[in-house]
Amino acid sequence: MNFCSDNVTGAAPEILAAITAANSGAVTSYGADKLTERVEQRLKDIFETDLAAFPVATGTAANALSLSLLAPPWGAVYCHQDAHIAVDECAAPEFYTGGAKVVDLPGEHGRLTAAQLADVIARSGKGVVHQAQAAAISLTQATEAGTVYRPDDVAAIAEVARKNGLGLHMDGARFANALVFLGVSPAEITWRAGVDILSFGATKNGALAAEVVVIFDRKRAEEFAFRRKRAGHLFSKMRFLSAQLDAYLDNGLWLRTARHANAMAKRLADGLMNVPGARLAHPVEANEIFVDLPEHAIRGLNTDGFQFYRWLGDDKTLLRLVTAHDTKEADVTAFIASAKRHAARANERVA
Amino acid sequence: MNFCSDNVTGAAPEILAAITAANSGAVTSYGADKLTERVEQRLKDIFETDLAAFPVATGTAANALSLSLLAPPWGAVYCHQDAHIAVDECAAPEFYTGGAKVVDLPGEHGRLTAAQLADVIARSGKGVVHQAQAAAISLTQATEAGTVYRPDDVAAIAEVARKNGLGLHMDGARFANALVFLGVSPAEITWRAGVDILSFGATKNGALAAEVVVIFDRKRAEEFAFRRKRAGHLFSKMRFLSAQLDAYLDNGLWLRTARHANAMAKRLADGLMNVPGARLAHPVEANEIFVDLPEHAIRGLNTDGFQFYRWLGDDKTLLRLVTAHDTKEADVTAFIASAKRHAARANERVA
Amino acid sequence: MNFCSDNVTGAAPEILAAITAANSGAVTSYGADKLTERVEQRLKDIFETDLAAFPVATGTAANALSLSLLAPPWGAVYCHQDAHIAVDECAAPEFYTGGAKVVDLPGEHGRLTAAQLADVIARSGKGVVHQAQAAAISLTQATEAGTVYRPDDVAAIAEVARKNGLGLHMDGARFANALVFLGVSPAEITWRAGVDILSFGATKNGALAAEVVVIFDRKRAEEFAFRRKRAGHLFSKMRFLSAQLDAYLDNGLWLRTARHANAMAKRLADGLMNVPGARLAHPVEANEIFVDLPEHAIRGLNTDGFQFYRWLGDDKTLLRLVTAHDTKEADVTAFIASAKRHAARANERVA
Amino acid sequence: MNFCSDNVTGAAPEILAAITAANSGAVTSYGADKLTERVEQRLKDIFETDLAAFPVATGTAANALSLSLLAPPWGAVYCHQDAHIAVDECAAPEFYTGGAKVVDLPGEHGRLTAAQLADVIARSGKGVVHQAQAAAISLTQATEAGTVYRPDDVAAIAEVARKNGLGLHMDGARFANALVFLGVSPAEITWRAGVDILSFGATKNGALAAEVVVIFDRKRAEEFAFRRKRAGHLFSKMRFLSAQLDAYLDNGLWLRTARHANAMAKRLADGLMNVPGARLAHPVEANEIFVDLPEHAIRGLNTDGFQFYRWLGDDKTLLRLVTAHDTKEADVTAFIASAKRHAARANERVA
Repeated sequence: MNFCSDNVTGAAPEILAAITAANSGAVTSYGADKLTERVEQRLKDIFETDLAAFPVATGTAANALSLSLLAPPWGAVYCHQDAHIAVDECAAPEFYTGGAKVVDLPGEHGRLTAAQLADVIARSGKGVVHQAQAAAISLTQATEAGTVYRPDDVAAIAEVARKNGLGLHMDGARFANALVFLGVSPAEITWRAGVDILSFGATKNGALAAEVVVIFDRKRAEEFAFRRKRAGHLFSKMRFLSAQLDAYLDNGLWLRTARHANAMAKRLADGLMNVPGARLAHPVEANEIFVDLPEHAIRGLNTDGFQFYRWLGDDKTLLRLVTAHDTKEADVTAFIASAKRHAARANERVA
Repeated sequence: MNFCSDNVTGAAPEILAAITAANSGAVTSYGADKLTERVEQRLKDIFETDLAAFPVATGTAANALSLSLLAPPWGAVYCHQDAHIAVDECAAPEFYTGGAKVVDLPGEHGRLTAAQLADVIARSGKGVVHQAQAAAISLTQATEAGTVYRPDDVAAIAEVARKNGLGLHMDGARFANALVFLGVSPAEITWRAGVDILSFGATKNGALAAEVVVIFDRKRAEEFAFRRKRAGHLFSKMRFLSAQLDAYLDNGLWLRTARHANAMAKRLADGLMNVPGARLAHPVEANEIFVDLPEHAIRGLNTDGFQFYRWLGDDKTLLRLVTAHDTKEADVTAFIASAKRHAARANERVA
Repeated sequence: MNFCSDNVTGAAPEILAAITAANSGAVTSYGADKLTERVEQRLKDIFETDLAAFPVATGTAANALSLSLLAPPWGAVYCHQDAHIAVDECAAPEFYTGGAKVVDLPGEHGRLTAAQLADVIARSGKGVVHQAQAAAISLTQATEAGTVYRPDDVAAIAEVARKNGLGLHMDGARFANALVFLGVSPAEITWRAGVDILSFGATKNGALAAEVVVIFDRKRAEEFAFRRKRAGHLFSKMRFLSAQLDAYLDNGLWLRTARHANAMAKRLADGLMNVPGARLAHPVEANEIFVDLPEHAIRGLNTDGFQFYRWLGDDKTLLRLVTAHDTKEADVTAFIASAKRHAARANERVA
Repeated sequence: MNFCSDNVTGAAPEILAAITAANSGAVTSYGADKLTERVEQRLKDIFETDLAAFPVATGTAANALSLSLLAPPWGAVYCHQDAHIAVDECAAPEFYTGGAKVVDLPGEHGRLTAAQLADVIARSGKGVVHQAQAAAISLTQATEAGTVYRPDDVAAIAEVARKNGLGLHMDGARFANALVFLGVSPAEITWRAGVDILSFGATKNGALAAEVVVIFDRKRAEEFAFRRKRAGHLFSKMRFLSAQLDAYLDNGLWLRTARHANAMAKRLADGLMNVPGARLAHPVEANEIFVDLPEHAIRGLNTDGFQFYRWLGDDKTLLRLVTAHDTKEADVTAFIASAKRHAARANERVA
């Protein structure tokens, strides 16, 4: 009954099975193997385009390496102020880019807008040697507020990027969750909308530790292999990374697990709306719920063994609840019941 | 019948099983879990001392992160000219240290000596602002020549390091292979001999992708956690990394797999000594054999389906043969027989 | 009649003369000379304490090198959002620190407050591996708004720094201007108030190109020499840098030039207050004036040959006017007269 | 009577005068001034080609910034093992390139050869992700052994660079000395021979502190301005840097000062050849002499007040003697006489 994050979960059985299946005999190391080749082919099919795919093991590696392709050391990367690259990666983008600036911007429900970015970039001192140079935009899809950019949002932002010569990165740690919410094709929300590089996440959605950097413009990919190696993110026994991704992409597993997580989030959010005093801070569009609950309900939930984060500090009542590929419906039901019960009792006491 | 490297192998069944076993229920992410705690405790027991242990997934990450603790950006790191950190990590140590110099030195059979290091350091310009400052020594154990440093070798080098204020790192990608050859305790060949930080390898010896940085002086460990995170080497689902290491260390598995690999190397080397024209370039002390074979024998082996590297180039006859935790005795026997047969036939033709 | 910046000016005659005087005979290079020694001694006398002094040629070098002593690559440096290190140095602090984050904060009239910093640091995730670690505070004295921190302001901020284990840097590109405004001793506004490292500026106040990094805690100085050299900021013919600083500090020249610049700013500001429609955006405490003037007055001033920046963009009427060591009183008088005349004429036309 | 280095000297009077002359009135800062423009134009005329010129104050800055244009962080830069970038810049190239490898190679009389470089590059693992990628060659002209590359030498090396896709940098800290020795045009020994970027030195040859990075391919120059600024090497009062270079290039001053230095070196070397036991280690082609003298002669010279370095350590008898733009013929004559006298006396004693 742990709703802290989708990374407290284990792996999908299909993915574990794939790892075991990959363990037969000698295989050329460092990615020159058939599984790795197949993962890239699967991604080409899924995204309906040529692309270069580089598996890595963590989201931070995927993001920071991606940004290092788009921003020079004197560049500026624009992102939402709650973005993982801005607040949760211990200055990894700065490390990988050689010292670029991550410029964090406000934005309702975790989203940036094209107008806002156009304005910020216009005032950024393009060509002026004293200022870090606007180099890239990074969007988080689904956002850190559990919301989702629509294809039109992304396309408008990409147009701002294109006009100003910036690259567009998408942090897709929860890409699958966003995709199944939107009901569009993977191409539509990425390269067709103007995304240059996608951190395509799998870990949070059922893998053990696997992400893949998807580079839609192969010219930009040339240097990635060297950057990945010198960062220590090239696995010698790559097959075990690729096996996870292969199973993840096989037969729509990644979409099924994301659909489940989103459905659980929706059910949980809907249920909580019947708790007196509950208020959602953001629309629930993926697998994260930001909900304000009465203090006594929160304490009651803790007493009943539910785990989650108070999002703004230990003395605040805004919770983040995250569902995942393996969230049990019964746990969701129990959570709602517990919240209702504790909220009601408090009201009785007050009355 | 692939003798290219110990990283072309799969994983030991016990380690695969441990991963599957670790996949139950929610576990706190980023290493605050019981498996990770147990790995550190196991290492304390094995090394008979307090220490800090940080699992990572690749040897390059382990080495480069370790060196970043020992060498400032204006530091010099001394190593053998064939060391992995010098020639096989695409300047990862330079990246992680922020620009330190990796100074590669010659040395017979892959080993450095205390006298050589004392001399080089004495001439390095200590305190002179124009020169990179001697900061660390990195030894590879077992070496890239398949040889092994004795405790006295390490202690003498550590004494040079200590006298000059340098840190001592050990790249133990094949630490287990060295250890079982020496028949000494892990403590004896590391911290008791003066090693400060050990890259303790598991991947080559039976894990999927798991190494652990062992820091014997906990004060030096303080910054490691931040360095690992900002490099993207902190796994969210750490349990799957720790599960590998836990099984690896459990009940001596790591020593058994290394003993097997070494025994296979010994058998292979012994057998090849009966091949006319064969000559060992280095003593065989771990799981690597550097052997010069007649050209026709090499071609015959290739024809028979054996895979390996010509170590000095495609037109050279020095081979590197690597055995591993899962090398089959039958394959070794077949290799020897093939070499003998092809060598003999050529001799017949000549005769 | 150029009020664009104090760096459009030439050098004080005394400083030029000192350079010429320094040009006699052979002198040991790289700073092991008597002039450099004397500069350090002068600074010890002026600041009434032991210290280490490192001349460099630019303010960006002084600031970025200073911060590299205080913040590790995973550190965060807090400063005002208009600080030079945040907006005018093309990510130099990020380069020199190896990727630390420069966190820019709002603040009235260019100043940060202790309460604000205490709050930000408290929410910064100290010890949490995912967040860049609060490492240093940088104050600009005088600020980019032409205002000045009082000793109590600095001491309160230093107390926040000390309690949280942060270093305190002062960007003193206009330190002399602040000092003569305050009328306190150099010690009082720096190390006695808790400043660890001071970028002590001379270029803007009469030198050709000379700043000196003053490190009050000599232990922190140990690595500076190496950092300066590897950045290419150690001059071989150091005497020519030191000669500038020596003359600057000799017989109070630095205070006289700053007093003149401040007096000119005061006179200019006072005069402009008689211009209809004029409004100061910030108190005038040093040698910078931020004044809003009517558009027709601005255009008239331009027509009359006065040069200055529109601070918020070409379509805005807020001007920055900077006076300097060599600003002529006649130019100030002429500026005021021109502004009044153009403002009056416009009013006539309107009437 | 200081022969330690050409950087123990002062400045040429013409250059000092130019600084004083530049000190009149307000001038736009950061290089948008007429003097800086004129320096670039002079260089275009001198090198008979379009180019981009960036003044900086130190040779280390010129070299490290130049290399950062040619080598990516995972690149390798090849140079002579005595090159300034390899041994005298405290890992500045590593810092500026973001961690590239400086690969130092042996070579007679301070020179590399095309054949040697072709061989090293051929074995460097081009395209192999594990190896730092051959990116640039850096030649020192004149070399650290006081010798000079001929145009054909440079052209042959440039051809190796071109064939392998490497950039070619020339460290011309003593470029003028090399040029007047060769008697060729500046174009002939640089871009016409295939040099991409030249660190054009002035400090050692008569300036106070001024070098200029000459980029022959303007496309490569685009990023230089940002790199220089973020390194703190963009001077606000640029006119004082440019004034030095302007005077240096005016009316052949730079060639006259270099001719003088070279002539003094030749005279000194010729004279020393009459000292019993004297032996030159390298041909004297510029302004440096490497000469082995009898120990008693060295001690006598020291007693007589001559200063110089024992090049290989305090117990060795190889001296480096450097002449400069202001070396007095009388000092040279005195040096020779002193050496002869002390050598002769010792012989008498022995006899």
